Amino acid sequence: MSDPLNAFVPGSQVFVTGASEGPLAGLRFAAKDIFDIAGYVTGGGNPDWARTHDPATAHAPVVQKLLDAGATLIGKTITDELTRGILGINAHYGTPVNTAAPDRVPGGSSSGSASAVAGGLVDFALGSDTGGSVRIPSSFCGIYGLRPTHGRISLEGILEQSASFDTIGWFARDPAILARAGAVLFGSAVEETPSFRLVVAEDAFAVAGAAVSAALAEPLDRVRALAETSESVQVCQTDLKDWRAAMGTVQSWEATKSFAAWVDATNPRFGFDVAQRFFDSATITDADVAAAGPMRQAHCARMAEIVTLGTVIALPTAPGPAPLKGLSQTDMWDMRARISLLTCVAGGAGLPQVSMPLGRVDGAPVGLSLIGSAHSDEKLLALASAMQA
Amino acid sequence: MSDPLNAFVPGSQVFVTGASEGPLAGLRFAAKDIFDIAGYVTGGGNPDWARTHDPATAHAPVVQKLLDAGATLIGKTITDELTRGILGINAHYGTPVNTAAPDRVPGGSSSGSASAVAGGLVDFALGSDTGGSVRIPSSFCGIYGLRPTHGRISLEGILEQSASFDTIGWFARDPAILARAGAVLFGSAVEETPSFRLVVAEDAFAVAGAAVSAALAEPLDRVRALAETSESVQVCQTDLKDWRAAMGTVQSWEATKSFAAWVDATNPRFGFDVAQRFFDSATITDADVAAAGPMRQAHCARMAEIVTLGTVIALPTAPGPAPLKGLSQTDMWDMRARISLLTCVAGGAGLPQVSMPLGRVDGAPVGLSLIGSAHSDEKLLALASAMQA
Repeated sequence: MSDPLNAFVPGSQVFVTGASEGPLAGLRFAAKDIFDIAGYVTGGGNPDWARTHDPATAHAPVVQKLLDAGATLIGKTITDELTRGILGINAHYGTPVNTAAPDRVPGGSSSGSASAVAGGLVDFALGSDTGGSVRIPSSFCGIYGLRPTHGRISLEGILEQSASFDTIGWFARDPAILARAGAVLFGSAVEETPSFRLVVAEDAFAVAGAAVSAALAEPLDRVRALAETSESVQVCQTDLKDWRAAMGTVQSWEATKSFAAWVDATNPRFGFDVAQRFFDSATITDADVAAAGPMRQAHCARMAEIVTLGTVIALPTAPGPAPLKGLSQTDMWDMRARISLLTCVAGGAGLPQVSMPLGRVDGAPVGLSLIGSAHSDEKLLALASAMQA
Repeated sequence: MSDPLNAFVPGSQVFVTGASEGPLAGLRFAAKDIFDIAGYVTGGGNPDWARTHDPATAHAPVVQKLLDAGATLIGKTITDELTRGILGINAHYGTPVNTAAPDRVPGGSSSGSASAVAGGLVDFALGSDTGGSVRIPSSFCGIYGLRPTHGRISLEGILEQSASFDTIGWFARDPAILARAGAVLFGSAVEETPSFRLVVAEDAFAVAGAAVSAALAEPLDRVRALAETSESVQVCQTDLKDWRAAMGTVQSWEATKSFAAWVDATNPRFGFDVAQRFFDSATITDADVAAAGPMRQAHCARMAEIVTLGTVIALPTAPGPAPLKGLSQTDMWDMRARISLLTCVAGGAGLPQVSMPLGRVDGAPVGLSLIGSAHSDEKLLALASAMQA
């Protein structure tokens, strides 16, 4: 397949025809190269991972569900190495094109899926989101993306990074298609526009700053207009850095464990930024993880307190538009740190979040996000559609 | 050129005819891919280094000297990435074949040069030795190799790792050819077999252990027979680990500085073991380097005391034969630490060392080394020839 966007894994040629009938009949989708596709190696964005693994013997259940519902799979998309990236830079396979801002990175780690959707190569695409890997490329590429409630959709047949936070998610240009895929994967109808109470996350908007807040003011007003009530709160009663640190400790510790034996045996090639994450996280001890426990509990409790049934939190998806390409290591590290101040809010508490492409800064997209209570995924999908309407 | 040994950089096609007359006329040589060859990119064993550098505009002076002396250059050889390895493993270009023990690594970082010499593709080959990168592959591949006195041969036109310890060196199967290349590069005749006092390094043999000591007993007796007097001493009066630590601190600190800006800007792909060295050494502070100073001075003073003019130290080049291929990261790390206990003896003091392929353990080569006083390189070359005779 011709791939002007560098969205698909170079040399991969995957095509699996969906069922002739079903709720997704006629739609084309792609899957991040961490989803098992029978007969193909799941490459994980790293040539040495690909080289040291056999082809999958079965489709990941989530892929099978989409095929059974009539969608046709047309490709494996580039991911940041072993999903350990947030900017969409892959030192081996290159950076997928951000068609909404071609001089900027697409965001990752589900970079190719976002690129393929934003560029119109597919109707929707599967990604995964551990620390923001669906939400951030949604925001950077100007498309819709859902990170579901943690644990709601099976991770079987998917390359695992961090069991406490891994979720699968997906992208679409059209929120109606985002919702149709959701109905298939959740096995439940997406409801009509729900009634809800809105909470605007003051501290998250403060992280993003004035330009993003201004760009999202109008769509935020439209969310308010749909809500029964609206208020602004500090979602974190200490500092978002505390939530980020606690989540980051556990995520990094789990990620290192997930790959430690393979790294030790394989001596894989990594981009330097990816290797750095492995080394940084290798210093985390069991005691560090235990020490992060109380803050994680406080985080989950506080979020549960805010998102009682029927409440939705609004926040910027990312602290700004996608950064320009050609970042130094230092730039990349700073950017990741700022991004995770926002992505940890839902991610650290296992809550669902939808990102909507409703603003622009410096000519590039910025997303407005809604976080709901656990298992309110369908409500968020309905709200995204209502916002477009 | 056909390269059954994987000794040459894949895709490189370098051929520079030497002068028609001269002391090296008719000989063929290769150069580690850290030596500038006019018109070719100096790749340094890393595809991103190659990608981000322009072709060299002039030959490195050391290469020019060899060409002017009649030797013909037939290729660029694989090196461990940016010379930061001792085992001869390159995650990008593969491991050159150790023809003397094909199931074992060849040693590095001058891996391809050693492989090409051992396998008979060339008569001699240029390498470099900062922490053992000529001596170790000499020992592992069963060939002769010289690490000259630090500072004696120009490093111009060569990829720098650590200015305090970098030397260029070379390999040959025949010690007479090792000496002929030396005469050209030193600009001085190699003397007849010199008279010398022998000092056997007890602590170095203890590091290597019984099997290596047994394998080197007979050649060591032959060295004794050539010597005027012979005695055994502990070369290090504290522990070789102290010398290794002091040298390692300075070397790693300098190596990190040499590449820091490029790494920051490029986000290069590295094999994990190489990336690990960068991360480990990035934690070294100026204060650590200053603290290593007294031990380095003690090391140099002690070695100067032993190798007064006319004294030669005998020691095993490596703690054992080349390790089998397929090492885990942990194995690699342990092996590097043991190797550097021996290579630091001469390297940390800037002294010349010749390795001679005079023993075998488990069917694989082990080298016997001689260390001389500063600028006694020609004497070591003469002794190597005398040992073969």
